[in-house]
Amino acid sequence: MAVKINENYMLIKSNYLFAEIARRVDRFQEENPEADIIKMGIGDVTIPLPKAVVKAFKAAVDEMGEKETFMGYGPEQGYSFLIKEIIEKDYAVRGIKLDEDEVFISDGAKCDTGNIQEIFGLDNTIAVTDPVYPVYVESNVMAGRSGAMDEDGKYDGMVYIPCTADNDFTPELPETPVDLIYLCYPNNPTGTALTKDELAKWVEYARENNSIILFDAAYEAYITEDNIPHSIYEIEGAREVAIEFRSFSKNAGFTGTRCAFTVVPKEVKAYDSEGEAHSLNPLWNRRQTTKFNGVSYPVQVAAKAVYSEEGQAEIKESIAYYMKNAEIIRESLKEMGLSIYGGVNSPYIWVKTPEGMTSWEFFDLLLSKANVVGTPGVGFGPSGEGYFRITAFNTLENTKEAMERISKLEI
Amino acid sequence: MAVKINENYMLIKSNYLFAEIARRVDRFQEENPEADIIKMGIGDVTIPLPKAVVKAFKAAVDEMGEKETFMGYGPEQGYSFLIKEIIEKDYAVRGIKLDEDEVFISDGAKCDTGNIQEIFGLDNTIAVTDPVYPVYVESNVMAGRSGAMDEDGKYDGMVYIPCTADNDFTPELPETPVDLIYLCYPNNPTGTALTKDELAKWVEYARENNSIILFDAAYEAYITEDNIPHSIYEIEGAREVAIEFRSFSKNAGFTGTRCAFTVVPKEVKAYDSEGEAHSLNPLWNRRQTTKFNGVSYPVQVAAKAVYSEEGQAEIKESIAYYMKNAEIIRESLKEMGLSIYGGVNSPYIWVKTPEGMTSWEFFDLLLSKANVVGTPGVGFGPSGEGYFRITAFNTLENTKEAMERISKLEI
Repeated sequence: MAVKINENYMLIKSNYLFAEIARRVDRFQEENPEADIIKMGIGDVTIPLPKAVVKAFKAAVDEMGEKETFMGYGPEQGYSFLIKEIIEKDYAVRGIKLDEDEVFISDGAKCDTGNIQEIFGLDNTIAVTDPVYPVYVESNVMAGRSGAMDEDGKYDGMVYIPCTADNDFTPELPETPVDLIYLCYPNNPTGTALTKDELAKWVEYARENNSIILFDAAYEAYITEDNIPHSIYEIEGAREVAIEFRSFSKNAGFTGTRCAFTVVPKEVKAYDSEGEAHSLNPLWNRRQTTKFNGVSYPVQVAAKAVYSEEGQAEIKESIAYYMKNAEIIRESLKEMGLSIYGGVNSPYIWVKTPEGMTSWEFFDLLLSKANVVGTPGVGFGPSGEGYFRITAFNTLENTKEAMERISKLEI
Repeated sequence: MAVKINENYMLIKSNYLFAEIARRVDRFQEENPEADIIKMGIGDVTIPLPKAVVKAFKAAVDEMGEKETFMGYGPEQGYSFLIKEIIEKDYAVRGIKLDEDEVFISDGAKCDTGNIQEIFGLDNTIAVTDPVYPVYVESNVMAGRSGAMDEDGKYDGMVYIPCTADNDFTPELPETPVDLIYLCYPNNPTGTALTKDELAKWVEYARENNSIILFDAAYEAYITEDNIPHSIYEIEGAREVAIEFRSFSKNAGFTGTRCAFTVVPKEVKAYDSEGEAHSLNPLWNRRQTTKFNGVSYPVQVAAKAVYSEEGQAEIKESIAYYMKNAEIIRESLKEMGLSIYGGVNSPYIWVKTPEGMTSWEFFDLLLSKANVVGTPGVGFGPSGEGYFRITAFNTLENTKEAMERISKLEI
């Protein structure tokens, strides 16, 4: 006898997308020390925390330093003062009613979208759009819901739903039944969005097939068009089949501060092997109370300040700044004759690489000739081959400069 | 077909220990509104964050508010500036050498001790001491490493190692082979410690049986005796068989601020089904990079300040304050003729309930007659029946007052 590893970990094909990007960028910089490289690859924000957030954050740290106001363990589910704001200002304003115990504060949408699969059985069939945020896939592979990766870059047993220019990036309903469906809209990496009508088809599918939709809405703050839902609960019947993930990372610059939340309505149910239905809300509560210990108190106070009048004004300004960049990227690349997608309801622009060029070839071209770094689409899944992601999270100056350089290339 | 729940969750017998305590306390307070209840139940600190920590914390929040110093995504494993301090000031000083990539910063020892089982196969046998911190048990039950709970309060398939006055709270090596061994020393809840010689027996056992020790050292800062190891790596050969968990919660008051770390030496290995050995360090790294997104930057800066000269002086003072309370509790209860354990290398005092009294009967007695709240030992496992936990985390005044009230009881 000897202690055994979780062998599912051995199935993970480490594409280490961002590590490979960093390696190529470092090598290029070393060989070309004078090159002024502009990075538009990783989806990380650059505008500092709103002043209203900083002020509240520091005041809460001060509370932690005084006997009378010191806070020890908080509720694993998060403080009521933050949950109330979320319910009122993110949901009630859109006509969505939530109870306080349906909202779970956490330290990140990555953590929550990675952990959520734990409350489901191992014998569920998983569906993801392709290209896809790798966490949805890999967290399930590690848990044992797949076989090995095939030659085509897909894990055996998982259902990949292609989203490419061919279908206008609108995922088609699966032909074989699936149990858990990960949808991220506005989408990372393609930057495209789903209309209410399109999302309603998925809700209907889930209701008919006793499936559950895991809806990642981390980018909802970037939505500019009216017919794009900010929350899946804007769709009738979604409360019974959908769990929603939100984050303060992309709307308020919390990527390094860490706060997010997950909504698990009490009506969402899954089944045991006898066919009996169980509400998922107490299961997620059990998962979080056993394996998580709540978000830092000052961080929750900081997140609350995002909803203040001043905070809201500041984050609107930041988002407008990024979306101005997105527009510049869209217009510049379109003018060059490239096919581009996204960037209207999202800070990501998804570029079709020029005829006959792979994602990595285009990456190398932009790096070497324009000193601009983006992300090869193939890194997000097989259907990402032939595409390239550019983010709007740089400064206006750098964005303009990058586009100027790219426009001079002969593509 | 329909989406399935993780049925292992149904096995959890919700003892909801602290919820039941809260329920009884609330009811008593309602019926006796004038009663001045002193709480010595939950293991939560009460002394505010050290001034050095608050100062550094706030300065880091300021950095997050300025373009030039703003921090976005950090490394999932934590910042080097904090890891370096840990290695130098927690380990090198005790002659323990660690590489930077052997230390993983996290948001809590509860999270890490709950998540660590994910990198191991489901077919491992789990051993815990009894009484035990419930997270070790429940995280394994939820993952599927046990059967249902027996009538005696033990999950089928798990190995419980009794630690009671009968064996001087020294766990005996298991008679049947086990794969994963959870040890928490200084112990929660008993407050007892293991000497180097005793811990060395476990390291030897693990080496001989290809087992792994998951060593929770969250309370090491409370050690006062020389022959008690602060780290399991003080034991020769432990680097090959032990993972260690540490936290800033109990030494520096971070229960509401959230920062901890886990040490996974590269030599620690487990086996696949072909008998091939795999280093656990890259497996934990994979788990953390896929399902976690790093600790808040300002919190990591705050944790670094714990290691400053000022920070160290402040935390020593707080610990001395709590340990003075522990001494008062020990002496008072001893004088009453009660058998007490722990409280020398730990902020917990473990009390044998008076002859013929169960843990909950003693709880009700102290609540109703002395208006003092503690924790029934049976809540931590079947071998905790007939014991009671009192914590030293209240104020000196309250601690004295509580002891005075208890000493007047006819026990």
